[in-house]
Amino acid sequence: MQPDDRSLFFPKTTVFGIGLLGGSFARALRQHGLTSTIIGCGRTEANLRRAKDLGIIDFWTTEPSDAVLDADLVLLATPVPTFSALVSGFRSSLKRGCLVTDVGSVKGSLVADIEGLMPEGACYVGSHPIAGGEASGCEASRADLFEGARCILTPTAATDSAALAVVAALWQALGMETVQMDPERHDEIYAMVSHFPHVAAYALVNTVAETDALALAFAGSGFRDATRIALSPPELWQGIVLANRSAVLKSARQFRRELDRVIAALELQDATALEVLFSRAQMARRALPDRSRDRE
Amino acid sequence: MQPDDRSLFFPKTTVFGIGLLGGSFARALRQHGLTSTIIGCGRTEANLRRAKDLGIIDFWTTEPSDAVLDADLVLLATPVPTFSALVSGFRSSLKRGCLVTDVGSVKGSLVADIEGLMPEGACYVGSHPIAGGEASGCEASRADLFEGARCILTPTAATDSAALAVVAALWQALGMETVQMDPERHDEIYAMVSHFPHVAAYALVNTVAETDALALAFAGSGFRDATRIALSPPELWQGIVLANRSAVLKSARQFRRELDRVIAALELQDATALEVLFSRAQMARRALPDRSRDRE
Repeated sequence: MQPDDRSLFFPKTTVFGIGLLGGSFARALRQHGLTSTIIGCGRTEANLRRAKDLGIIDFWTTEPSDAVLDADLVLLATPVPTFSALVSGFRSSLKRGCLVTDVGSVKGSLVADIEGLMPEGACYVGSHPIAGGEASGCEASRADLFEGARCILTPTAATDSAALAVVAALWQALGMETVQMDPERHDEIYAMVSHFPHVAAYALVNTVAETDALALAFAGSGFRDATRIALSPPELWQGIVLANRSAVLKSARQFRRELDRVIAALELQDATALEVLFSRAQMARRALPDRSRDRE
Repeated sequence: MQPDDRSLFFPKTTVFGIGLLGGSFARALRQHGLTSTIIGCGRTEANLRRAKDLGIIDFWTTEPSDAVLDADLVLLATPVPTFSALVSGFRSSLKRGCLVTDVGSVKGSLVADIEGLMPEGACYVGSHPIAGGEASGCEASRADLFEGARCILTPTAATDSAALAVVAALWQALGMETVQMDPERHDEIYAMVSHFPHVAAYALVNTVAETDALALAFAGSGFRDATRIALSPPELWQGIVLANRSAVLKSARQFRRELDRVIAALELQDATALEVLFSRAQMARRALPDRSRDRE
């Protein structure tokens, strides 16, 4: 494969999971003229029909092996825990030269696992476009979802370098900035800046809802912003945090230590300790680069 | 005092603390034609000069007793922990008929304390306009800061009912919806929906900053929104959480229990338990009324 302009065309593309990300990928590919035919595959016929009605996909099937027949590009956009079984199921139907990638929020050993499942001549490259948000479903999909945001590529030593270059060019063609890092580093970072913060946001809502639900009527913009990510799909996020369990647990325990410091300072009425902890956080938060196009 | 239109004019107004809230109050009073002369009082001459140069106040002094001489309306917009000493210092200079209110985020015993300090003929009514945000300083002040947001009024059994009606009419004239509740209930509620969430946001930033500061470069909009309130002024918030210490501690301990449930579910790889916890939070978060004009 050559990452030049001609090679960046995939006559037949298969997308597994036509939700916000899968649907947006299909729309974006088409808008940028990077494919001719898009096959959608998923578990729910009603959703696939809706996606076809909306013009997101051209054909659909609920049978993975049928879906990938003759495909040049395959995108995994189902929940992360489904990836291995899905690929095991369709691998023998992949044609030579097929490129497989994904939108999974967790990488870790999955990348090596899926690389190990690729038949001769087909290549897998791990991708994590930092796009999405708390909306879900193909109705929420949009062709510009990926524009201006980053896509993390997670090659291993076994990743085909030409395939990596094509996948990078593909996301770039959809308007993304690509960044490479190894799968374990990816998982450490996203446990801290995304996976655990989702856990914390869900827990923050529950803290109020279970103590005194009437208080929620007084939540202002601070609480709303702090808990926006608690609107994210629970089934998706339990899968993500379990798939990245050890790194999320590490963050959760570190957060508990931070919380215990504040609790101790409150108990001791130690104004200085509180101000030091809050100031450190304020400084670090102020130093965040503006990556507001990275949506999750 | 009569809460009719004529009584809603305060020839001379004194504002303690010309920051975001005090400055915005001064601007809003003037814009709505509710005062003639505004005296600013604070500790820092440079800030008071700037506020005068910006036309926010007409005169300034750093001497509280001078500031309140002949004032018809006094607003406390300095940090909550300063209120008692401030009022003790100027109380003997208040004229009969003077109305004192505040913008403090914590009420509790402060309301009764300040009411106890009022000389004969002067009245105090506790107010908490849910306005502000992470910006600070008189340069950030704006006449429309209060519009569309709620103001919590916290009368006690000792509060003068006519004074309460005037203070309610005053905030309503600035565009606010007023809600009454007793000071203890106010503190319970705001510990849950505002004070503890600030603590959690600071702790969330520190969790990443102290473990792996490089990871912050990968924070997307989810992390940014979840930690926006960690941009709030540390000195102000240490004062708020200490002033509302027992309620904030209660929320912090409840949050720790919620977090421990998630940690246990992660350790046990209990997908169902995680999904139940996350779903409960998502439902409660979805049910939040849209009060995006309440800014904090």
